[in-house]
Amino acid sequence: MDRPVGIFDSGVGGLTVASAIRKELPGEDFIYYGDTQHAPYGDKSASTITAYSRRITRFLLEQHCKCIVIACNSASAAAYENLRQEFPQISWLNVVQPSTRWVHQQGFTKVGVIATRATIESRVYEKQLKALHPGLEVASKATPLLAPLVEEGFAGTSVSREVIDAYLTDPHFRHIQALILGCTHYPLLQTQLEDYYHGEVAVLDSAQGVAQALRDQLSQARMVNPAATGRMRFYVSENTPAFQQIARLFFGHSIELEERRLPF
Amino acid sequence: MDRPVGIFDSGVGGLTVASAIRKELPGEDFIYYGDTQHAPYGDKSASTITAYSRRITRFLLEQHCKCIVIACNSASAAAYENLRQEFPQISWLNVVQPSTRWVHQQGFTKVGVIATRATIESRVYEKQLKALHPGLEVASKATPLLAPLVEEGFAGTSVSREVIDAYLTDPHFRHIQALILGCTHYPLLQTQLEDYYHGEVAVLDSAQGVAQALRDQLSQARMVNPAATGRMRFYVSENTPAFQQIARLFFGHSIELEERRLPF
Repeated sequence: MDRPVGIFDSGVGGLTVASAIRKELPGEDFIYYGDTQHAPYGDKSASTITAYSRRITRFLLEQHCKCIVIACNSASAAAYENLRQEFPQISWLNVVQPSTRWVHQQGFTKVGVIATRATIESRVYEKQLKALHPGLEVASKATPLLAPLVEEGFAGTSVSREVIDAYLTDPHFRHIQALILGCTHYPLLQTQLEDYYHGEVAVLDSAQGVAQALRDQLSQARMVNPAATGRMRFYVSENTPAFQQIARLFFGHSIELEERRLPF
Repeated sequence: MDRPVGIFDSGVGGLTVASAIRKELPGEDFIYYGDTQHAPYGDKSASTITAYSRRITRFLLEQHCKCIVIACNSASAAAYENLRQEFPQISWLNVVQPSTRWVHQQGFTKVGVIATRATIESRVYEKQLKALHPGLEVASKATPLLAPLVEEGFAGTSVSREVIDAYLTDPHFRHIQALILGCTHYPLLQTQLEDYYHGEVAVLDSAQGVAQALRDQLSQARMVNPAATGRMRFYVSENTPAFQQIARLFFGHSIELEERRLPF
């Protein structure tokens, strides 16, 4: 099983997922595709998101990927079920399920979800959580300033701390036992979010959750790469200096993005 | 000349322009169109922006507008010249020219421009400033966090102050005599920007500049509305509670947005 793992997102935010996978499975080859030309997916219809995701899937299959990780919250909500049925020859993972499953396993009674406006409006986390545990209380909140704040390098500063304070003082969030980070950008704020709750609330980095779920899935299916070469390729549909800069921030160190337009 | 003034933008940000026009010309009727369904225009091609702007123009002409104000920076850069030639039967104003003309008239030698990434990359302000005054030194900087910060209600807080500090300490901005606000959201940060420079740099609210230019233009053409009824209509291509909320912020008080999809 020396074929690569495919990872895709609407942009470069999913590189936090790629970075977590890199750490969890350093021997796996992977191919990342960020559809920067059409980002963000959040405001687009489910049929448009599915059409873009399908085209990216075909590209990743042409690259012989053995499984595909949907690192984008909007595509996880809009396209996952369809793609899984259309392309059953490979295994699939999305960015929503690992967090919601973990919350269910812990037996929590009240959890919070923060994400972009589009993800909160899609109610993808809430629906999956309620499907697993109908009695679970779910507080959801759109926190649209957090993603641009991270992109602009303000994670870990007093600016991000004050914005986090302003968002999380929402009384609906009182007495939560876990906070799900429903946006690929938010892992960069994890420490500050944990500090906000003085370490008393489990802050779930969904990137880390997906990486662990991928490790379990590959291991159970005996699909771990025995060659362990750890090659990485990063494609984007539109490349700019700004994307290069943000990519370094999200992946943790400098990487080369290659522009590859797909015939959408 | 009791026909209304048309104002359009890619979204609700242009309501700062509508608000300035309201204050400058309280007797004029106006019709605002915000293309929220396709916002932001910044990442779209010039031909797409022109196609959207043309359709909005037709709608505003059907409403018998006597002149049209393009309140959107991206459409001012991409579509203004074409529209002016295609629709010469009415008078036109864009959001870029008043600020650049004023800077030229003041005889400044170094100015700064802050705007979204798309506006800065289009170089629309720089090109117009250099066309008027080739020797002018222009420092440009993308400040992508400021617009979502304003939309999320952080204008006037310590958060916006710190972000402004971080952006404007850029050494390229040393010794500027004026700062052009190249985004419709930024008038809400004007006081803080003036404070940053201790009142020693002219901070140009382009909304205010357009409103004054419109007053001069209508007055010179003897097109001021003698009836002075001051009726306002606000249309958007897609309406949501979030847009309603942001609209109140930008216009200064609560207004009713009506959804009107155009056959693009």
